[in-house]
Amino acid sequence: MNNHRILLKERPIGIPGPEHFTADVEAVRPPAAGELLVATRYISIDPAMRSWIGAGPSYVRQVEIGQPMRAGGIGQVLESRAPEFAVGDWVQGRTGWQSHPTLRADQTQKLDLSVGTVEDWAGPLGTSALTAYFGLRDVGALRPGDIVLVSGAAGGVGQIACQIAQIEACHVIGIAGGAEKCGYLRDALKLDAVIDYKAEPDIAAAIRRACPGGIDVYFDNVGGEILDGALAALRMGARVVSCGRISQAGAVEPYGVRNLGALGGKRVRMQGFLVFDYHDRYAEARAYLSHHLRAGRLRQKLHVVEGLDLAPQALAMLFSGGNTGKLVVGLS
Amino acid sequence: MNNHRILLKERPIGIPGPEHFTADVEAVRPPAAGELLVATRYISIDPAMRSWIGAGPSYVRQVEIGQPMRAGGIGQVLESRAPEFAVGDWVQGRTGWQSHPTLRADQTQKLDLSVGTVEDWAGPLGTSALTAYFGLRDVGALRPGDIVLVSGAAGGVGQIACQIAQIEACHVIGIAGGAEKCGYLRDALKLDAVIDYKAEPDIAAAIRRACPGGIDVYFDNVGGEILDGALAALRMGARVVSCGRISQAGAVEPYGVRNLGALGGKRVRMQGFLVFDYHDRYAEARAYLSHHLRAGRLRQKLHVVEGLDLAPQALAMLFSGGNTGKLVVGLS
Repeated sequence: MNNHRILLKERPIGIPGPEHFTADVEAVRPPAAGELLVATRYISIDPAMRSWIGAGPSYVRQVEIGQPMRAGGIGQVLESRAPEFAVGDWVQGRTGWQSHPTLRADQTQKLDLSVGTVEDWAGPLGTSALTAYFGLRDVGALRPGDIVLVSGAAGGVGQIACQIAQIEACHVIGIAGGAEKCGYLRDALKLDAVIDYKAEPDIAAAIRRACPGGIDVYFDNVGGEILDGALAALRMGARVVSCGRISQAGAVEPYGVRNLGALGGKRVRMQGFLVFDYHDRYAEARAYLSHHLRAGRLRQKLHVVEGLDLAPQALAMLFSGGNTGKLVVGLS
Repeated sequence: MNNHRILLKERPIGIPGPEHFTADVEAVRPPAAGELLVATRYISIDPAMRSWIGAGPSYVRQVEIGQPMRAGGIGQVLESRAPEFAVGDWVQGRTGWQSHPTLRADQTQKLDLSVGTVEDWAGPLGTSALTAYFGLRDVGALRPGDIVLVSGAAGGVGQIACQIAQIEACHVIGIAGGAEKCGYLRDALKLDAVIDYKAEPDIAAAIRRACPGGIDVYFDNVGGEILDGALAALRMGARVVSCGRISQAGAVEPYGVRNLGALGGKRVRMQGFLVFDYHDRYAEARAYLSHHLRAGRLRQKLHVVEGLDLAPQALAMLFSGGNTGKLVVGLS
């Protein structure tokens, strides 16, 4: 049996794409003691990947040139040399961009299919959802009645952030680009208001119109000009959750944020975080997410790109805003 | 007896100066029940004053045109119609820019001269010192061993922030403009390192050189380019205390901050605050400040501009960086 892999060929400057990767095939490596051979089913495609492979400074270990691209994924155990895993178990772990990786059992978790399907584990129970949970509730200190603005609202993290805010009795405004995404937010997720930033000549004015009472929590997935517009509309004591800044991924010159003066006068807290810091509390978050998933209060559109060879294209799509919902590569 | 006053004549665009104020004289108003007549000795001159009088949005009530400029001050009771105050008591309260204001007793506090002199109450026990205390300890979550960078380090808040960080066993780097201020920080306060931003062509590079291990807490009194340089040098889990942004006071176009990407990757918290929010804890802060003052671990240079008529010039001086230490107007 072969393991198909996508390797990092070259560090991208700006947006990563197919030219930065190369495919290869090797024979699968039989698991040693404490290892599993896994058939990958879904691979998560996330904005953070860019910092793992780019030439700039990275706050996590970078992927080496010639190595398989790092990624979280879901698959099924084909062969186990770890007593706690059986053939046929569904698991999540560091599959990378590989069809049949051999993984360390102690870095792999069995999926509990009683709380959600395999697709649920790729979406509303996955890492993007955990990011939304800890970002909004811990960093954002969400309170019932808050006015919550979410950018990148149709994306993997954004959709869940919007729905958690709805569950917590907040007034939710989403920002996304294009009619399809905005229609989804309006009609399927039923947000209180939706802003199509691609159709707005002045995003700051559009935010002011959509949030006439100001913003208590801004969940920022994009940075740049939208962040500046949100800062100008913050209420006293507002919290800005710095989750991502995808608008700046391909920027030659980063956008200069002008409205930080709001922090002092309005006692604003603006805070970044990494979901991995909350590792000890993943069970808490999954209890919350699966509870509301079963109750029908949480849903997530998976955007599946079929075929491992298209993983580099899928990654590029993330930065052009091509996906609606949580982006994954599917292997069948 | 007359009350000399300085009234707001016109709202400044940019930096306030003498052209925005006018002097007048009125007969003192005899105190009604619950009031005090006070002879002002020191008036605090603070960066926040600009937001009280400017044309831009303000988060506190603005001073009306034709009214005396608002200010905190220290003086001596000349006449009392409040049982808890006696003639001769030293007090602090909302004197405004007035030589002989009549004040509400319930908005005025008696100074305890057993814990510090009148000058101490104008300086290291005053509002600027409280701002440094709550900013650094509560907002900045200062920990022993932290590497602490303070901008505006020779100013009223900055000097105290530097010394609190020293008391708390931190490594302290100060930024100020010009040889006199930097000499004071180096020789009198004995900071670990001092950066003269006026002598540095590349402030970001100077910060990196002075903080080779990175920064745990950046106490920001200035905003703008220095903030950008500090953001680029933050360590994992750093805190940015957004206390002021005096560099932006006269800016036609606000500086665009480019390095906010550090927030996500390094789990940074950046937070603004107003000292008045901590009103219930002033006693705690004063216990700390007076303890270390008596022990000789805290000092503050008062920069006294003598004469009420020079209050507008003193305010302008604050924005041109003319003061070293806590700026006050003295009335004798």
